[in-house]
Amino acid sequence: MDAFGVHSEVGTLRKVMVHRPDLSLRRLTPTNHDDLLFDDVLWVERAQFEHDEFVARMRDRGVEVFLLRDLLAQALAADAGIRNRVIELTVSEYTVGISLVDEIRAVLAGLSAEDLATHLIGGLTVAESGLDVGRLRATSVEAAALADLGTFILPPLPNTLFTRDSSCWIYGGVSINPMYWPARRLEAYNVAAIYRAHPMFAEATFEYWYPELGDEGRFHAADFGRASLEGGDVQPIGNGTVLIGLSERSQARMIEQIARALFDKGAAERVIAVVLSKDRAHMHLDTVFTMLDRDAVTIYPKVINEARVISLRPGAGSGRFHVTVEEGLLPAVADAMGVPKLRVVETGGDAYQQEREQWDDGNNVVALAPGVVVAYERNTYTIAKMRAAGIEVITIEGFELGKGRGGGHCMTCPLLRDPL
Amino acid sequence: MDAFGVHSEVGTLRKVMVHRPDLSLRRLTPTNHDDLLFDDVLWVERAQFEHDEFVARMRDRGVEVFLLRDLLAQALAADAGIRNRVIELTVSEYTVGISLVDEIRAVLAGLSAEDLATHLIGGLTVAESGLDVGRLRATSVEAAALADLGTFILPPLPNTLFTRDSSCWIYGGVSINPMYWPARRLEAYNVAAIYRAHPMFAEATFEYWYPELGDEGRFHAADFGRASLEGGDVQPIGNGTVLIGLSERSQARMIEQIARALFDKGAAERVIAVVLSKDRAHMHLDTVFTMLDRDAVTIYPKVINEARVISLRPGAGSGRFHVTVEEGLLPAVADAMGVPKLRVVETGGDAYQQEREQWDDGNNVVALAPGVVVAYERNTYTIAKMRAAGIEVITIEGFELGKGRGGGHCMTCPLLRDPL
Amino acid sequence: MDAFGVHSEVGTLRKVMVHRPDLSLRRLTPTNHDDLLFDDVLWVERAQFEHDEFVARMRDRGVEVFLLRDLLAQALAADAGIRNRVIELTVSEYTVGISLVDEIRAVLAGLSAEDLATHLIGGLTVAESGLDVGRLRATSVEAAALADLGTFILPPLPNTLFTRDSSCWIYGGVSINPMYWPARRLEAYNVAAIYRAHPMFAEATFEYWYPELGDEGRFHAADFGRASLEGGDVQPIGNGTVLIGLSERSQARMIEQIARALFDKGAAERVIAVVLSKDRAHMHLDTVFTMLDRDAVTIYPKVINEARVISLRPGAGSGRFHVTVEEGLLPAVADAMGVPKLRVVETGGDAYQQEREQWDDGNNVVALAPGVVVAYERNTYTIAKMRAAGIEVITIEGFELGKGRGGGHCMTCPLLRDPL
Amino acid sequence: MDAFGVHSEVGTLRKVMVHRPDLSLRRLTPTNHDDLLFDDVLWVERAQFEHDEFVARMRDRGVEVFLLRDLLAQALAADAGIRNRVIELTVSEYTVGISLVDEIRAVLAGLSAEDLATHLIGGLTVAESGLDVGRLRATSVEAAALADLGTFILPPLPNTLFTRDSSCWIYGGVSINPMYWPARRLEAYNVAAIYRAHPMFAEATFEYWYPELGDEGRFHAADFGRASLEGGDVQPIGNGTVLIGLSERSQARMIEQIARALFDKGAAERVIAVVLSKDRAHMHLDTVFTMLDRDAVTIYPKVINEARVISLRPGAGSGRFHVTVEEGLLPAVADAMGVPKLRVVETGGDAYQQEREQWDDGNNVVALAPGVVVAYERNTYTIAKMRAAGIEVITIEGFELGKGRGGGHCMTCPLLRDPL
Repeated sequence: MDAFGVHSEVGTLRKVMVHRPDLSLRRLTPTNHDDLLFDDVLWVERAQFEHDEFVARMRDRGVEVFLLRDLLAQALAADAGIRNRVIELTVSEYTVGISLVDEIRAVLAGLSAEDLATHLIGGLTVAESGLDVGRLRATSVEAAALADLGTFILPPLPNTLFTRDSSCWIYGGVSINPMYWPARRLEAYNVAAIYRAHPMFAEATFEYWYPELGDEGRFHAADFGRASLEGGDVQPIGNGTVLIGLSERSQARMIEQIARALFDKGAAERVIAVVLSKDRAHMHLDTVFTMLDRDAVTIYPKVINEARVISLRPGAGSGRFHVTVEEGLLPAVADAMGVPKLRVVETGGDAYQQEREQWDDGNNVVALAPGVVVAYERNTYTIAKMRAAGIEVITIEGFELGKGRGGGHCMTCPLLRDPL
Repeated sequence: MDAFGVHSEVGTLRKVMVHRPDLSLRRLTPTNHDDLLFDDVLWVERAQFEHDEFVARMRDRGVEVFLLRDLLAQALAADAGIRNRVIELTVSEYTVGISLVDEIRAVLAGLSAEDLATHLIGGLTVAESGLDVGRLRATSVEAAALADLGTFILPPLPNTLFTRDSSCWIYGGVSINPMYWPARRLEAYNVAAIYRAHPMFAEATFEYWYPELGDEGRFHAADFGRASLEGGDVQPIGNGTVLIGLSERSQARMIEQIARALFDKGAAERVIAVVLSKDRAHMHLDTVFTMLDRDAVTIYPKVINEARVISLRPGAGSGRFHVTVEEGLLPAVADAMGVPKLRVVETGGDAYQQEREQWDDGNNVVALAPGVVVAYERNTYTIAKMRAAGIEVITIEGFELGKGRGGGHCMTCPLLRDPL
Repeated sequence: MDAFGVHSEVGTLRKVMVHRPDLSLRRLTPTNHDDLLFDDVLWVERAQFEHDEFVARMRDRGVEVFLLRDLLAQALAADAGIRNRVIELTVSEYTVGISLVDEIRAVLAGLSAEDLATHLIGGLTVAESGLDVGRLRATSVEAAALADLGTFILPPLPNTLFTRDSSCWIYGGVSINPMYWPARRLEAYNVAAIYRAHPMFAEATFEYWYPELGDEGRFHAADFGRASLEGGDVQPIGNGTVLIGLSERSQARMIEQIARALFDKGAAERVIAVVLSKDRAHMHLDTVFTMLDRDAVTIYPKVINEARVISLRPGAGSGRFHVTVEEGLLPAVADAMGVPKLRVVETGGDAYQQEREQWDDGNNVVALAPGVVVAYERNTYTIAKMRAAGIEVITIEGFELGKGRGGGHCMTCPLLRDPL
Repeated sequence: MDAFGVHSEVGTLRKVMVHRPDLSLRRLTPTNHDDLLFDDVLWVERAQFEHDEFVARMRDRGVEVFLLRDLLAQALAADAGIRNRVIELTVSEYTVGISLVDEIRAVLAGLSAEDLATHLIGGLTVAESGLDVGRLRATSVEAAALADLGTFILPPLPNTLFTRDSSCWIYGGVSINPMYWPARRLEAYNVAAIYRAHPMFAEATFEYWYPELGDEGRFHAADFGRASLEGGDVQPIGNGTVLIGLSERSQARMIEQIARALFDKGAAERVIAVVLSKDRAHMHLDTVFTMLDRDAVTIYPKVINEARVISLRPGAGSGRFHVTVEEGLLPAVADAMGVPKLRVVETGGDAYQQEREQWDDGNNVVALAPGVVVAYERNTYTIAKMRAAGIEVITIEGFELGKGRGGGHCMTCPLLRDPL
């Protein structure tokens, strides 16, 4: 078996990357959390405790769990060129101004790999930079205009918690995703550094579905923000098929990019696009649909039953597709999986409770093995239905983790998962 | 005198570029105008009438008025390479998807230069493309996911009306501006095509302050939307000085870019940055401050009197600045202009009226010559005060034009203006 | 014929009440207009000019036009009891506080009837009250907490412009309407004073459909804001039928109130409720449906063709109804009018233009006689279609008037209109 | 000692009314929670568990804890007149329509007192009413227009959880508060029923500060929503002094009502009004200021240090005040309490953490006795500072309870508390 690759949604999970809540979440306040694209502020120590429990549950089952910040620190330590490159991309004339660029780069260059990783994710304030503000204000408009020393020179990236989005593995390769909001696009620099410089990846063989290797700039393309893809919309369900949510955050144009890359290498033979309505409650496909077992899924019926579903298959030549409209998502997935009919667990409870449990990530579970999933304990009605359907449900607390509006599926970036 | 260059804010205006309301404004509806970043829908025929009157008033005074769409059509006709380049930039895998890119490029390639210019500004719908939708839906996810034929393949750019913003001349050169909102960034492709391919510019000599010539990609830089500049914030007031509003839309980092370019060529010796509070009512400096005469300005006092003001002067070497904090904008401008004290016309009326006339662009006037300005007739209180101060005020109607929230200053991009 | 009564939507209009733009509109600023429930600020002198033209067009046709402010002043002058009652209702412990109530009532009591009418509609600021603020601040928390003298003691009522809403005549009686937003409910005090105290009404005989006479408090009932009705939703189309929009602003419970009152007196035999979707663009029925002639209507098809339509007829006893669901609005109206089929003029232009002209009150026309309507000139596509259908369309400018989002129908409260 | 009365903010707490989370909170969904004025949806079983723990901590200290729903059920059972009156006020022509009023009243009349209490707080849907919808649709517009059976006939009142607001005791009397949002005003009917009909109150002697006894209608006065008071703004700190926040929700005019009532009976001699800026994070005074001990308070400094503070004392006669401006809240409270200087515990942590802990109700603690308070465990920095100041802090979990944005102070309505 290869070192890395995700060959299904429910095969045994072998390796996974997660992010332990940290500095970036300590930055959130009632005032700034909207700008930083995080739904609420949270109690970080408690979120760490809950996350540690989540990680422990996965390790109990033999999953090898990697922490994103550790991988980043190790990558930065391992490769001075990449380390410099990340600093250059993050700190430039266009992010801090001509007059500060050298100063700030020097500050970062002087940090240990550990500290650098911490601040690339958690941001850096003027005060933390240790620079002489009085001197700066005499030479920099950026500094002269600053209101206070708590201002961020580097922005914090609190959504790093959701490792599912910034990169995603599809069969034998990875996509480093150009995310929808500018505030999240910097996350890609960090994961790109990991895949390119961390020894365990440097020694492995895998494809880059997006962007092409050597075309680093592609994930912040000249698209004026009109082309984006987030991993929460992507599910390599097996049998050469990939589901991709066509949402506000993942457009048809990016689905075509991924489809071409996969088809060109023969890595997949079918992409199923699921056209989602636009609603905060279900921004990604995995908030309304995840797999539980070889032939079992959990869905939020109000959305899934009305979604338009489109299949792409390779056409005549690279970048040519054969496109057909499906009857619905469930039959299309059953067909792709080669099962006569899926077992379906809908969100539990009455109409109010269904809407509440969907909102609380009741359908956003992550499988550790066929028929074994991790879910937030709070979704008691949905969990009861999963158990009644024969699924083993491992529960975790999510009082604080859940406030970011993402469950176990959102918080995991599988690196190695068995085929079915 | 050079063919192009803007050497003051109130010297005699010789050449100006404006945009006659057109297709892009016909696209606006109550439903889409927010997404298209335009404040209201307007009656286009009437807006054209009002704009024609505005142009006539300028021509009456001997100003040579160029229409942006005409210049763009002429540029596209004159230079096939630029024509192709604009099509390629506008229509790409990242804007229409792999499966449509060739089809749509072919549609545009088949248009006359006139029609191409019209649609680059006004957008293009599926229905207008003339393509066989049934066929497309069988090969393209983008097409298969389309809800209706009124969907835009190319987005309309209604803010083209405000030619002040997308490019601005500062003394002997021009800046093609990376605008704040992605929805406006495409405007820069069109003006770039004009400056680079239109015969009258091709034969002229001038500087590119931003981006550097040959670095076209720069105005959609790898900045994740964090670096932008809009011409409404820029005023080359003369005497080697440039005022730049430091607003949500024009950050310190871009002010430093412009300052370095000017200082390196000796084109200016002082940039005055005006730190504006964030408020929809005064998004650009020219909504609260414009010049009326050599020693006269109009201001909205509530904002201008509280603005923090910073001067940049060249420091030791390129990209090094000497930064000082000024006492206020009026003394700084007086000092820069070499006058003992400015004559100041504040927005007219009581507190309610002042706020209303500022909102209705009462302070957003454009000078045709020293002491001669064009203003919307509706701002009767402010106009009365200007006239009492000896300014000649030429009034224009702005029932429809004004709905976009911009006055004569916003709607003009001076190409040639005398020094004082 | 009775002195007052509205017996159709398109019979010859004899008497109408309108409100000339005034002080209340001068109060609007970009900052406060949302709180005052007005869509935009407007140029009041110009709005007055446009309104005067509108009035002139109606007078040209022999309509007797009354100005609401004049009627109010005359009513206040005619009846000292009502004058005191209005002051007491408007100025109370619950609107200005215990410590100011006597002072402010004394200020109002000291005004001429003209000035009192002006300020009841236009509001009153601390500065305008002429009171000694220093003294007040030593005795009143309300005053001590005031930020500035521009604060309103009495709020301005800019929506008085839309006389259609605060009261509406249905056949031989009037409803004084409890409006949806608290900010508009004070308007009812003013119109109630007119109907109860103005000599021309005092001498006339008519019904009060709502509230019952002597039950003045009813229009601000103990309903916690859950029962409201606005005249823009009410159309007595003739033949004993009344159309009422069931909108966010006019609930089923108020429709039942009106229906009971009408049925009890035999004043109508059918009420047709039109269930409108909730959308700012069509808040009242008359923004998507008005009558043009005995058998002709103008509609915004997107809304009207999808509306659910319900007929109420008298049931067994007062307050008992016979309720049926209709096939659609157009057949129900045709049936009620006794015509085989209505002539229908849809909003003009392509899909974009239709949406724009509906927004600009293209369907909100007021008939002066059968087949003769007043419309804003700007809706050129819809007007062309009306004329093609044989309707005489008198156009008025609406650059400023239209900014409040109401057309001729919204701005008129017919007091006497012929049956068909 | 009297049976009821609150004579300080930190004297020993003897009796308190709270509301256990219930049906009203099960109604909340991501879609409706904004309309129902609740910040988030919550996991009700868990919220019950947390609330039970909170109650247990109070009972551990000898506090007699009453549950609002139980008191309401007992009051409804005890007094058929009040029971009928509550049904009549809640279900009327203006809330359900003429055609349904008898039916719905009959449904409620048929419920047990327990079930009636449950639904008065938790709302009632069409489906729950058990009525024959088909029949209703043939007689009621309200019913004919209903989209589905999940529609609420009676709205749920989820903010009942915050018993502090709907009524508040001040020394020897109670105020039943007219709340700011219409959606909360119904809560007052329920608490009024308790105070007027529950045997334990019926037998006690106390004052009604607001509204006057027999003037039940007053708490939904003819004020068009412009006069409101919420208990979260009211603190009877002892020594004849009452603090009242002057916020968006508690205006000067209502503060004057309370002051007059108190002064007329000699129940207080000073009211200190604290003018709060408008901000979601500190809507009530008790979110930024509560007392910890005789001479100790906890504050959120950013708000409290900038608040304007006004004292009212009795003037010459009822409803006359002597008003003075104070230097600040802390000196005014110290003066009122007769201590030289207050011990002040500010919100803990750095600027980010302070803002987060204020948001998470770090300053919203409730004292059980002098120097003994209950706080959410999550506010670890603020709690550490309180403990360092010698305060005994009893912690409770608040994962779910805290989502409504209220802490121990907000969730308690003290009925009997000792003086200092």
